[in-house]
Amino acid sequence: MTADKIWNLLHAIRERQPVVHNLTNFVVMNSSANALLALGASPAMVHSSDEVEDFVVLSQALVINIGTLYSEQIAACKLAAIRAKAAGVPWVLDPVGAGATPYRQAAADALIRLGPSVVRGNGSEILTLAHPARAGRGRGVDSLHGSESALDAARQLAENSGAVIAVTGAVDYVTDGSRVVEIHNGHPLMTRVTGLGCSATAVIGAFLAVESDALAATAAALAVFGLAGELAAERARGPGSLQVELLDTLYALDETLLTERARVAS
Amino acid sequence: MTADKIWNLLHAIRERQPVVHNLTNFVVMNSSANALLALGASPAMVHSSDEVEDFVVLSQALVINIGTLYSEQIAACKLAAIRAKAAGVPWVLDPVGAGATPYRQAAADALIRLGPSVVRGNGSEILTLAHPARAGRGRGVDSLHGSESALDAARQLAENSGAVIAVTGAVDYVTDGSRVVEIHNGHPLMTRVTGLGCSATAVIGAFLAVESDALAATAAALAVFGLAGELAAERARGPGSLQVELLDTLYALDETLLTERARVAS
Amino acid sequence: MTADKIWNLLHAIRERQPVVHNLTNFVVMNSSANALLALGASPAMVHSSDEVEDFVVLSQALVINIGTLYSEQIAACKLAAIRAKAAGVPWVLDPVGAGATPYRQAAADALIRLGPSVVRGNGSEILTLAHPARAGRGRGVDSLHGSESALDAARQLAENSGAVIAVTGAVDYVTDGSRVVEIHNGHPLMTRVTGLGCSATAVIGAFLAVESDALAATAAALAVFGLAGELAAERARGPGSLQVELLDTLYALDETLLTERARVAS
Repeated sequence: MTADKIWNLLHAIRERQPVVHNLTNFVVMNSSANALLALGASPAMVHSSDEVEDFVVLSQALVINIGTLYSEQIAACKLAAIRAKAAGVPWVLDPVGAGATPYRQAAADALIRLGPSVVRGNGSEILTLAHPARAGRGRGVDSLHGSESALDAARQLAENSGAVIAVTGAVDYVTDGSRVVEIHNGHPLMTRVTGLGCSATAVIGAFLAVESDALAATAAALAVFGLAGELAAERARGPGSLQVELLDTLYALDETLLTERARVAS
Repeated sequence: MTADKIWNLLHAIRERQPVVHNLTNFVVMNSSANALLALGASPAMVHSSDEVEDFVVLSQALVINIGTLYSEQIAACKLAAIRAKAAGVPWVLDPVGAGATPYRQAAADALIRLGPSVVRGNGSEILTLAHPARAGRGRGVDSLHGSESALDAARQLAENSGAVIAVTGAVDYVTDGSRVVEIHNGHPLMTRVTGLGCSATAVIGAFLAVESDALAATAAALAVFGLAGELAAERARGPGSLQVELLDTLYALDETLLTERARVAS
Repeated sequence: MTADKIWNLLHAIRERQPVVHNLTNFVVMNSSANALLALGASPAMVHSSDEVEDFVVLSQALVINIGTLYSEQIAACKLAAIRAKAAGVPWVLDPVGAGATPYRQAAADALIRLGPSVVRGNGSEILTLAHPARAGRGRGVDSLHGSESALDAARQLAENSGAVIAVTGAVDYVTDGSRVVEIHNGHPLMTRVTGLGCSATAVIGAFLAVESDALAATAAALAVFGLAGELAAERARGPGSLQVELLDTLYALDETLLTERARVAS
């Protein structure tokens, strides 16, 4: 995964402006849409079960996020995922808070069985999905586990599910079960802004729209998003200005900065 | 439409702080409320069918936006629109993504039949509403058509529906079927922030609350909002800071700047 | 209520990162989560009646806000409140727009009967809750009554309900029926940003998680939040930058500034 390759994918998003269909939670609808627009994609937040099947086939990628789950939404997510799969539209799952409640666990398990291209979660979420019985519970929707402690679980989940698994934290790991890519970008202040994990997942969706190798797309997305957060944190005075700077940086990120600062290893 | 007239209407909003009732989508609830507050109005986001009829009659204008549509919401929008019409409360419709799916098309068509004072959309949306069979489909919820290519459709839709039609883009056109007003304010960076079209619609609601001539109210609203965006873009480093500057500018916009920079022609 | 005490509570939140469960409205989900994260707490926005009972017992405090009310949400709020009460999890109620419609009034009355630790509202809301028949109606969801004019009503409501009542405005009053604490922090520009009252309520939740005396927790929360808003307003150019500065200030607020600037009197 070279900086060249990452740059080419980012450039492709800006050129093609892929439609990224999001079934996401109410907390991050606005911030995820803004992250995708700043990146160069064309986000749409369409969530009714009356139209998700029609809309997803007009899209180049689908993002499903279970943050503020409710029963009608689970149905809509399933319908969108099934149609995406059938139509060859790649999709990424964000299992927010998996393991926090049985309801949330069941929804995440059901969705992962529908065959996402990628699952992105924090350490606790990936541990829970890999080992439901051992229940690696988080602290509410935040992680109690570092990403490195979930790497083995990620590998196993990738093998069992057939999806690329991304476990994000101080270091991000992306694996298809055999290969592992590490991304060392990002900044601790990012954990003090709500929904940046969800935005990272949305950005993975945009990269899936322009790159069929899900491992490469996911690693590139996390490098770009992590780097934008890291550069933004250097200019920010706190979590409020971080959010503003992050969007400005995603919009302006150029080849030079990306080449100098992206830290991806495999 | 003189700058004097626009200023008087903006001043009236700041003085009277009209209650603007919004039935809007989940992506923009926060940003639309903030745009209305920065402008000087008093926004309320009340959307349950159990109370919209009671609330709309306490309001000076109603804004209906079908962005994140679902079936209960369509019912609530209809109830609010019918009551608004009966009570003489002016209302504006934002047919987000009309034409993208049959569901969305049907909802937009049904609402337009309930007699909005104003409809504001992008080129693709207005083309679709005017000529459903020819389906001027957008790119997801974004427009594939410049505003100028939808001007004839806007005129026709105005005649058929009795509403003032605003088609926004690089140039904004407002028409009642015979008269046409052009607004040349705004900035391309505004398309990289989610929901600024929705905010423009909400701002039209605030102007409808203080001006009974819907054509004048709409043109004034689009001039003020476009100018605020244009001034904000001059200070912004990207879409994140644009959003912040836009609210600051709406709040601080004074008579001198408005007179010097508003570009409205009829 | 000394600055020392307030500082100790803020410090405790930053150390313990309590999980604060929010059943709040769609307008402020993002901004309330960000306020709690900037403060140092761990917010979760979990609202389905299928899981609120399971989630609230994993939390250290519960926040219920009726801003964008709908029938399923009322049921979920009741379930969460009942379970919180049974499990000894403190909870705070924000009766947004109580009195604006009969539906909203009934929901607020029903929730207050479930025994919140604290109720925070503006003047109109507290007047309405104390004297439903006299209906101290607001202007939409904004207050028509200064906080001082609702102080007697707040005292009476505290006695009748057993909850600590906070009525916020130019001066904030907190009372348990006998004691009254006044907070003189804050800034008028805060009324031009949507949902800062809701964020204040969420912050009260975080303080309830670390302090069992609800009067002290509420007064400390309003002093910290009001001071952060006041300091932010000194740096802001309008409501857009105020929101950014407020989060940065909540995150960075230190003992020196708090000691110098907190203005709490009892």
